[in-house]
Amino acid sequence: MKVVEFPKVVPQEKLEVRFGAKLRQIRNEKDISQEALADKAGLTRSYIGRIDRGRINVSLATLYKLAEALEISPKELLP
Amino acid sequence: MKVVEFPKVVPQEKLEVRFGAKLRQIRNEKDISQEALADKAGLTRSYIGRIDRGRINVSLATLYKLAEALEISPKELLP
Repeated sequence: MKVVEFPKVVPQEKLEVRFGAKLRQIRNEKDISQEALADKAGLTRSYIGRIDRGRINVSLATLYKLAEALEISPKELLP
Repeated sequence: MKVVEFPKVVPQEKLEVRFGAKLRQIRNEKDISQEALADKAGLTRSYIGRIDRGRINVSLATLYKLAEALEISPKELLP
């Protein structure tokens, strides 16, 4: 039986995944649903869902919209 | 003759324009040419030129590449 070895160093997760996790963390801390955030930021719920799941390389404009909707600085939203 | 009135409040410049100005400022402080930055960040000189002129709504991935090439934190590059 072949033993699968895991790499010693865990590679850093992709930027999109880290950004999604950061957004989700702040959204949960503030108890804001995907839908409420979408409404406030002028985005769709499905787009927020895709960002959450680390699928989107968001633009600076979207970063600023999300930060404004969450009432935080864009800097705080960077992973 | 019609008198052109300027708005009393100067509207904030577009995000892309403010980002271009910030990139140019840091690039100049560090005395790095558009070409050198392009090489280091894996982008083209013409793309850096368009960012500088406030034409591009850059992605998070590009923000991080530019910051890494300038040896600063992505937070410092946000306008």
